[in-house]
Amino acid sequence: MYKVKVFVTLRESVLDPQGSVVKNALHSMTYQEVQDVRIGKYMELTIEKTAKDIDSTVREMCEKLLANTVIEDFRYEVEEVVAQ
Amino acid sequence: MYKVKVFVTLRESVLDPQGSVVKNALHSMTYQEVQDVRIGKYMELTIEKTAKDIDSTVREMCEKLLANTVIEDFRYEVEEVVAQ
Repeated sequence: MYKVKVFVTLRESVLDPQGSVVKNALHSMTYQEVQDVRIGKYMELTIEKTAKDIDSTVREMCEKLLANTVIEDFRYEVEEVVAQ
Repeated sequence: MYKVKVFVTLRESVLDPQGSVVKNALHSMTYQEVQDVRIGKYMELTIEKTAKDIDSTVREMCEKLLANTVIEDFRYEVEEVVAQ
């Protein structure tokens, strides 16, 4: 079994209005030291072991569904979990 | 300057309808090996160095604004960035 962590973030060049709002909120809460906030998605997938290569499977899932590659970047970490 | 990565996830006991929808979508896209999907938020903060302790500052920001601790857990990683 695999535990996969997927991080989807907006590309550098894309505006992040949600991040700006959070930054302004933090500023008004006395955290003036915050310079930038970018908000993305974090997904944890539990995937059964199959004959298919886990790495290319996850890449495919990201490209087809989990991330919009026009405006988002993704990266992932695969961890094998041994059932006890 | 610090680069802080914040991960906010729903608590184990809280239902994640968004995750279920993504799981079903993956199943219908031939990825039947996906057993579970949990969706959370991922935030990247850039924070200036101040006299305040960065660790407790970030914890405070999470508790007060970034996470809803009734239904969400959070964890964070602080990385010091040296300007070049």
